[in-house]
Amino acid sequence: MDPKALFFDVFGTCVDWRSGVAREVAELAALRGVTVDAEGIADAWRAEYQPQLETVRSGRRPWVTLDVLHRESLERVLAGTALEGAGAAERDELTRAWHRLDPWPDTVEGLTRMRARHVIAPNSNGHIALVLNMARRAGLPWDVILGAETARAYKTRPEAYLRNVEAVGLAPHEVMMVAAHNGDLIAAAACGLRTAFVARPTEHGPGQTTDLEPEGDYDIVAADLIALAESLDR
Amino acid sequence: MDPKALFFDVFGTCVDWRSGVAREVAELAALRGVTVDAEGIADAWRAEYQPQLETVRSGRRPWVTLDVLHRESLERVLAGTALEGAGAAERDELTRAWHRLDPWPDTVEGLTRMRARHVIAPNSNGHIALVLNMARRAGLPWDVILGAETARAYKTRPEAYLRNVEAVGLAPHEVMMVAAHNGDLIAAAACGLRTAFVARPTEHGPGQTTDLEPEGDYDIVAADLIALAESLDR
Repeated sequence: MDPKALFFDVFGTCVDWRSGVAREVAELAALRGVTVDAEGIADAWRAEYQPQLETVRSGRRPWVTLDVLHRESLERVLAGTALEGAGAAERDELTRAWHRLDPWPDTVEGLTRMRARHVIAPNSNGHIALVLNMARRAGLPWDVILGAETARAYKTRPEAYLRNVEAVGLAPHEVMMVAAHNGDLIAAAACGLRTAFVARPTEHGPGQTTDLEPEGDYDIVAADLIALAESLDR
Repeated sequence: MDPKALFFDVFGTCVDWRSGVAREVAELAALRGVTVDAEGIADAWRAEYQPQLETVRSGRRPWVTLDVLHRESLERVLAGTALEGAGAAERDELTRAWHRLDPWPDTVEGLTRMRARHVIAPNSNGHIALVLNMARRAGLPWDVILGAETARAYKTRPEAYLRNVEAVGLAPHEVMMVAAHNGDLIAAAACGLRTAFVARPTEHGPGQTTDLEPEGDYDIVAADLIALAESLDR
């Protein structure tokens, strides 16, 4: 049976966070006349992501947006680098680099094709303002923006899937979660959603070792989002 | 200063609820072989709307979706009419008529023009599933769907404006509320939003007596949504 709605992971699955963040790190370094390993800083920042989410998922603190979590972790990331002297306003602006990420080359065409017959929605850990700013800039044609804020929970907590399924008025088996991350799909499947894996083998750069292959029994495995659209249309 | 985002009331301002609901009432009556005053039933149903919202706004009950409120009031609306014999499944389906309303003739073109330079979002008392189903059917090109569910409050409570302004990452003065209803705009202005009034003089049918004229000091008064787009572009 054809899913009625497709939920998409965003960071890594739809957009290339590493290049986008590294670009703005390099721009700030140039402005300040210093030299840094921009990709290394992007990687270090992303490495803080899961531990930061865990402070909310574990219940140790109330839900806050990804802007708050990114801004906090940036303090640790810049310490000891040539950007350590960046001021608060520069750090605030750099935090918004996560709103200005480019889509992978197949993303806009793939989403546009899937939208013809399916509701398409991000189900991201990003908050509404972040995913909205990204969509306007990158031309991502979402029907509705779902995510951390509509569920007030972070993936891979079950409510991050189930509350958003409820929000679109469907049952879990009518929704397919699309992601480049095995952990996201295994959690979605445990909630009764269908699943599609799209590999993004350079999300973490040329040396990536994780999520290169599907590690679960997913409904669809596709090379990219255009291939996923073709698979759904078959 | 140009607003960054435009928030739209939906029922009455963007779509013609009276004709849409009456059409499905008439279809159900034809199926059941009975004759009813379809417009009268649509009007009676809408007359239950504010009292039903008030049960939530007043705190007498927790927030529930408009589907729940519409379905409850339908019991009172059909009592004593030729549709009194309609069963539960027929009543459930008729309740979803509120998801299947047609836009006014200027709505899609007006929204599309405004979207070029502004974030456009419904700020409706409708829940996400309702506004999403309506948008897919009618071709309403929202950037993001906001409303009762993202605020978990019904207009004209202040949080129904302020939480949605916060959700898009803006300050109240950067957002303009667009509505055909003076009460909505006066409440939005009290929260610091800018305001635009668009008259919909046949929303309640040919005998409409309310909201024919602006009753506040609004930033813009426009004849329809295309005229509003032109006014914003001047």
